[in-house]
Amino acid sequence: MLTKNVIKQVKSLQQQKHRKELGLFVVEGRKMVEELLLSDFRTENLFATEAFLALNPTIKAEAVSEVQMQQMSGQDTPPGILAVVHIPPAKPLSSDLPLTLALDRIANPGNMGTLIRTAEWFGLRDVVCSTDCVELWNPKVIQATMGSVFRINVAYADLPSFLSSQKQSGKAVYGALLEGENLFEMKEKPEGIIVIGSESHGIRSEVRAHITRPITIPRAGGSVTESLNAAVAGGIILSHLARFSNRHP
Amino acid sequence: MLTKNVIKQVKSLQQQKHRKELGLFVVEGRKMVEELLLSDFRTENLFATEAFLALNPTIKAEAVSEVQMQQMSGQDTPPGILAVVHIPPAKPLSSDLPLTLALDRIANPGNMGTLIRTAEWFGLRDVVCSTDCVELWNPKVIQATMGSVFRINVAYADLPSFLSSQKQSGKAVYGALLEGENLFEMKEKPEGIIVIGSESHGIRSEVRAHITRPITIPRAGGSVTESLNAAVAGGIILSHLARFSNRHP
Repeated sequence: MLTKNVIKQVKSLQQQKHRKELGLFVVEGRKMVEELLLSDFRTENLFATEAFLALNPTIKAEAVSEVQMQQMSGQDTPPGILAVVHIPPAKPLSSDLPLTLALDRIANPGNMGTLIRTAEWFGLRDVVCSTDCVELWNPKVIQATMGSVFRINVAYADLPSFLSSQKQSGKAVYGALLEGENLFEMKEKPEGIIVIGSESHGIRSEVRAHITRPITIPRAGGSVTESLNAAVAGGIILSHLARFSNRHP
Repeated sequence: MLTKNVIKQVKSLQQQKHRKELGLFVVEGRKMVEELLLSDFRTENLFATEAFLALNPTIKAEAVSEVQMQQMSGQDTPPGILAVVHIPPAKPLSSDLPLTLALDRIANPGNMGTLIRTAEWFGLRDVVCSTDCVELWNPKVIQATMGSVFRINVAYADLPSFLSSQKQSGKAVYGALLEGENLFEMKEKPEGIIVIGSESHGIRSEVRAHITRPITIPRAGGSVTESLNAAVAGGIILSHLARFSNRHP
């Protein structure tokens, strides 16, 4: 029986404060919930509208009315299925893969989720975020990962310290800067960290100081655009660097 | 003097119906307005808050109160400057550049704007959209272009007919499909049309029928992600294909 208190609590998970307090976050949509149920994340509740259940008879969820779903959902047009999920404890970075993605102050939830999704496409396992990146459990980040959040190891860290320790252990730190090597001409098999900067400010100077391999995505001659979207820039850099490594068939 | 009627009219431009009726659209933010004023788009009104004008004394705009700006703006946190701009008449496609971008049913305004911005970065001049792509003058599309909308020629067309005529004139039609040539191994200087499909359905079958050069963005072995974000996929494809052409220094 779905009480008003539960509805209110689920709705409250749209806000970071309540996610932190309750240790829970929300996942919506059939595809996302399928990915969730295949993962080792712990699901607290699974709600679906009767219309959704009629179309998806194999899914076992608590039936709720359209109105109740509307009250719980964070979306204008609720997809009809919503899970409440436990935020797992932070895992240590464990990857022995050659490449790791680092995000510096990514503020847009869609970009953050898309970067995590793209990292997984190119075979990365670890994403390290500066502590002022948007929070991972934000519903818009979760949705934009398209399920990669359930498989990729995302850690928040003091980025300058992290990069400093990686450098000391001999890794390269790649970062997109205005003056760098031409990405399209790099032919090596890269190992190290790829840093993507924020949408409005690029890579901040404290982080920039640790970049050992500045790279540039060449712009067409004559083009007057000043920058690329952060997620697009990340995708392009990953496609050119990760294609030489991070294959683990 | 800013009347209530004008405020109401500006606010109404958040909706496509009113943009169509009035032939106007809205641009917000300092950077976007600067790009607008450098373009040949015709500005009907330019409003700024007094706080904004104090910080940007060289900008000539009608001063409005914070409350009035809030009432006109489409953003939760209005950037303080807002222009009302005339929708220009559709231009014929005119490019003699080797590559054109075609978008099939892109529904997300952020993706649409980002694809236009990325096309400009890589030196393209023409973007052809299927008639069911999101409308170009949608404020979220405009903002996501970061100004490219003022310089790139965006046309809406029946995509199957357009591609058919391009094919007849000897052009290649590239499109990302599951089974295609490995994008990372293509070394030719491509000429033709690059088709990007919708976020949820990819390239629809009527459009797919016209693709002469299916291409695939290789995924790392072991990765279980099903797809890339449409704007990221577009950026990756453009970065690998346009780097060989569309340089016009």
